[in-house]
Amino acid sequence: MTATGILLVSCPDQPGIVAAVASFVAAHGGNVIDLQQHTDHTDSAFFQRVEFELDHVDLGREEIADAFAPVADRYAMQWSLRFSDERLRVGVLASKEPHCLQDTLNRWRTGELPVDVTVVVSNHPDHAELARWFGVPYHHVPIVDGDRATQEERVREALIDHGVDLVVLARYMQVLSPELCAAWPERIINIHHSFLPAFIGAAPYRRAKERGVKLVGATAHYVTEELDDGPIIEQDVVRVDHRHSVDDLTLLGADVERVVLSRAVLWHCQDRIIRYGNQTVVF
Amino acid sequence: MTATGILLVSCPDQPGIVAAVASFVAAHGGNVIDLQQHTDHTDSAFFQRVEFELDHVDLGREEIADAFAPVADRYAMQWSLRFSDERLRVGVLASKEPHCLQDTLNRWRTGELPVDVTVVVSNHPDHAELARWFGVPYHHVPIVDGDRATQEERVREALIDHGVDLVVLARYMQVLSPELCAAWPERIINIHHSFLPAFIGAAPYRRAKERGVKLVGATAHYVTEELDDGPIIEQDVVRVDHRHSVDDLTLLGADVERVVLSRAVLWHCQDRIIRYGNQTVVF
Amino acid sequence: MTATGILLVSCPDQPGIVAAVASFVAAHGGNVIDLQQHTDHTDSAFFQRVEFELDHVDLGREEIADAFAPVADRYAMQWSLRFSDERLRVGVLASKEPHCLQDTLNRWRTGELPVDVTVVVSNHPDHAELARWFGVPYHHVPIVDGDRATQEERVREALIDHGVDLVVLARYMQVLSPELCAAWPERIINIHHSFLPAFIGAAPYRRAKERGVKLVGATAHYVTEELDDGPIIEQDVVRVDHRHSVDDLTLLGADVERVVLSRAVLWHCQDRIIRYGNQTVVF
Amino acid sequence: MTATGILLVSCPDQPGIVAAVASFVAAHGGNVIDLQQHTDHTDSAFFQRVEFELDHVDLGREEIADAFAPVADRYAMQWSLRFSDERLRVGVLASKEPHCLQDTLNRWRTGELPVDVTVVVSNHPDHAELARWFGVPYHHVPIVDGDRATQEERVREALIDHGVDLVVLARYMQVLSPELCAAWPERIINIHHSFLPAFIGAAPYRRAKERGVKLVGATAHYVTEELDDGPIIEQDVVRVDHRHSVDDLTLLGADVERVVLSRAVLWHCQDRIIRYGNQTVVF
Repeated sequence: MTATGILLVSCPDQPGIVAAVASFVAAHGGNVIDLQQHTDHTDSAFFQRVEFELDHVDLGREEIADAFAPVADRYAMQWSLRFSDERLRVGVLASKEPHCLQDTLNRWRTGELPVDVTVVVSNHPDHAELARWFGVPYHHVPIVDGDRATQEERVREALIDHGVDLVVLARYMQVLSPELCAAWPERIINIHHSFLPAFIGAAPYRRAKERGVKLVGATAHYVTEELDDGPIIEQDVVRVDHRHSVDDLTLLGADVERVVLSRAVLWHCQDRIIRYGNQTVVF
Repeated sequence: MTATGILLVSCPDQPGIVAAVASFVAAHGGNVIDLQQHTDHTDSAFFQRVEFELDHVDLGREEIADAFAPVADRYAMQWSLRFSDERLRVGVLASKEPHCLQDTLNRWRTGELPVDVTVVVSNHPDHAELARWFGVPYHHVPIVDGDRATQEERVREALIDHGVDLVVLARYMQVLSPELCAAWPERIINIHHSFLPAFIGAAPYRRAKERGVKLVGATAHYVTEELDDGPIIEQDVVRVDHRHSVDDLTLLGADVERVVLSRAVLWHCQDRIIRYGNQTVVF
Repeated sequence: MTATGILLVSCPDQPGIVAAVASFVAAHGGNVIDLQQHTDHTDSAFFQRVEFELDHVDLGREEIADAFAPVADRYAMQWSLRFSDERLRVGVLASKEPHCLQDTLNRWRTGELPVDVTVVVSNHPDHAELARWFGVPYHHVPIVDGDRATQEERVREALIDHGVDLVVLARYMQVLSPELCAAWPERIINIHHSFLPAFIGAAPYRRAKERGVKLVGATAHYVTEELDDGPIIEQDVVRVDHRHSVDDLTLLGADVERVVLSRAVLWHCQDRIIRYGNQTVVF
Repeated sequence: MTATGILLVSCPDQPGIVAAVASFVAAHGGNVIDLQQHTDHTDSAFFQRVEFELDHVDLGREEIADAFAPVADRYAMQWSLRFSDERLRVGVLASKEPHCLQDTLNRWRTGELPVDVTVVVSNHPDHAELARWFGVPYHHVPIVDGDRATQEERVREALIDHGVDLVVLARYMQVLSPELCAAWPERIINIHHSFLPAFIGAAPYRRAKERGVKLVGATAHYVTEELDDGPIIEQDVVRVDHRHSVDDLTLLGADVERVVLSRAVLWHCQDRIIRYGNQTVVF
């Protein structure tokens, strides 16, 4: 498949925006192959994703943004332009649980996830062998004497050193500081092992068992300063019953976590997601 | 299908309980057609449902309980015995929203729900015509001058007058007093329009929209003194996305509410549910 | 909500189509509030739905189509234009089973389904009272002496007499002739009580039980000459197990049938569906 | 958790079977911790699974079967007795696609799947490195000059040499001969990449795309002589739409395949499955 350009746009709603963007693409020889648009009527907010083939575009890649800027300015757009063959550099953070880390690495290796995984960082040494097998640098950054700040600083350095665009928290059980969140805004994706906003915080499967729920779920969301409260990207659930122990819920939930996280990361890498307040538009 | 007896048993776990119950049934000529047993290992709690054909049982229906009592005593059982052809008398409480009321009446009329619906009570006059069409007495019991206590007293009288065994809250938007809850212990089923424990309380669809969830759900539970905190019987969800307004969520959720409530009521009427602390075993 | 115009477009793919359509809307003062576009790369086929507010459009409703025609011609479009406040006239056909008929009528009465149900036709007399309660003319058109051709002719007359735009087969168990199918092309929606293409034809729940499936489903599709083979609009499933009899599957499936049919009819009425060969694009 | 014994029983229905089995267990000091029973009324067939703690059983493990035989004979039972700490020896067969093989190996390594994987056999060389990483012998058994019989004979030898109790076809794309099927009766589990009986045979995702289905699924079943027609153990589905290509369906379906296969294998290893004609009872 040929390379495409992807414009993600959000702005106050007014007539003519779709025409302006589509006409820009057409005027420069681009062929739209996927366009999704949404208007939030409550707030008169406009959102759009346009994916277009680059083959016959009469501008160099580096010229497109400059050419588009006047259109964007006219409608006070927040926008981004990316190209489908430019892979995001992904850093994965994990703690003890291996299943989400493993799944992410595996989808990357098979090509399902079109990214470059450049580093795995963990506060545990457990996954060194796994990372080596996948050929990814592994940084074991333990918390020493309860000094979380220093540990986080070293995590941040590792991510920066490896040029990470997108941070994937693959069951990383440390709370990130507001500073770290701010360093990768809307570019840190976490998987929480419950159907948020149910069971915010620790031990959701145990609490799900205690509450006697009949479904357990998982939630992928962008990380914000507030714990487990960032914009939700994807959720799913699986049916459980009284015969399932907390360990059973954990195993059943792990299957959901893997799939939900992988979808969220894929959609982010395909530039399908626009954050909007504390919500997401997923095209 | 021939009539069956259904024994529901819970007690502390120890060896020999299944054998004792099954031997009792067999000794009196009963044929077990469905038996489910569960042990909760955390608390060493034992649960069992036995359904047996009555055809060749050598006891009269009214004698079975007396004959079983010594077995029950030996194992300190909490237990119940019911017969599949003895229909529960159901009272349905509703407020403005008609869909769960209508669905319950309809499943009753088609025979899907093997109960006698003996009365519909509402704090609104809206459903009088509907109840008349189904041939069920309708009591409009409004809240006058904000006097909820008096209104609830009249609701209670209506339920008692119509000999109600099971109260179904079909989107009844009034909180029941502890006294009313205590009058039908584990025999009041509510449908809450969210995936509990997410969105306890009012306006769950609006709050679901604000939180940006990707699934909305419904929860059927036994009513206890604590709002939306009773033992969960059944839950289900439906996928939503950013294009859905609060009204859309409400319509999509209504389909889930109907089905979830109907399952919970059916299972209750089939004696499939054992409450256990704040959980349920659903056989 | 204000009235909107909805353009549905399909044509061979080429650059500039989105821009042309959106520019047309913008040039006449329309504000796009929902636009979805899809390109099928295998066949280079282009599909688009544009919904735009009519408030400030500088053309009368009856002028828009003429004004758009040159744009449509330029790209060899198949297209339609409808207005959100013009309700389709719906005729419902049913046989013995009432649940889909009842559900359709009910969603119409509550306003969930923005249509005019103008007639109910059945080869059985059973639903006369139901139709009367909803205030819809009921035509009982039995098959006399096995003469299906005459019966179908009378069905067709009833549909024509009531000015039906869209025919909903709400568990109507008669096969339609090619002539009747051709009279409402892509405007007859059937609900089949299986997950097609599994269990095409009669008695799908019995066959599902015999095959021992662990899910049963339902399929809404446009009717074509070939039985159960028309373009699928929507499908869903529900989990079953060995404890469920054929009757249980039928009841569980009925809940899925209702929801799947109602979604398909709603989407059709919202002009969300484009038929494409034997497939559908559902925006 | 302490070791348990698991009795799986099927026989013609008659009164007293549950009592006889439960009394046998109780008489020898066993404590029942999970008992599920089902009667198929159509055929008067009786099914039961009893799991009991071995701690205080007054028989040696090897004596239990002999002691139970008279009970079994009295009711003409087909039955099996296994112990929860005796691990099945599993052989995995794979072709090109790695995801089910990998998932099976991984669940085994993490302990989620309580088996011994003793050998991986493939008609392709691709998975040698993977098997080595997991420490499992890998047999590459290609089809040479189209001679399938010789290849299958070598596969069979590998399975026998490694003492395989259960064969898992993890997307193994060769049809097994009746002889091989007969060698592991009800002990060969296949994952088919469709919601059977839809899309029996080759290329189900391509055919699903062509048929325009709105869900794709996967089916785990015991292998019988008839292709894709054995008793179904588990099925699940995932929602798709017109934007998904055949490749997308393949990736989405792969997630379902993994989970469905893993459940079927786990349930088999937990002795939860009784084959019954061409159906399964899954307790």
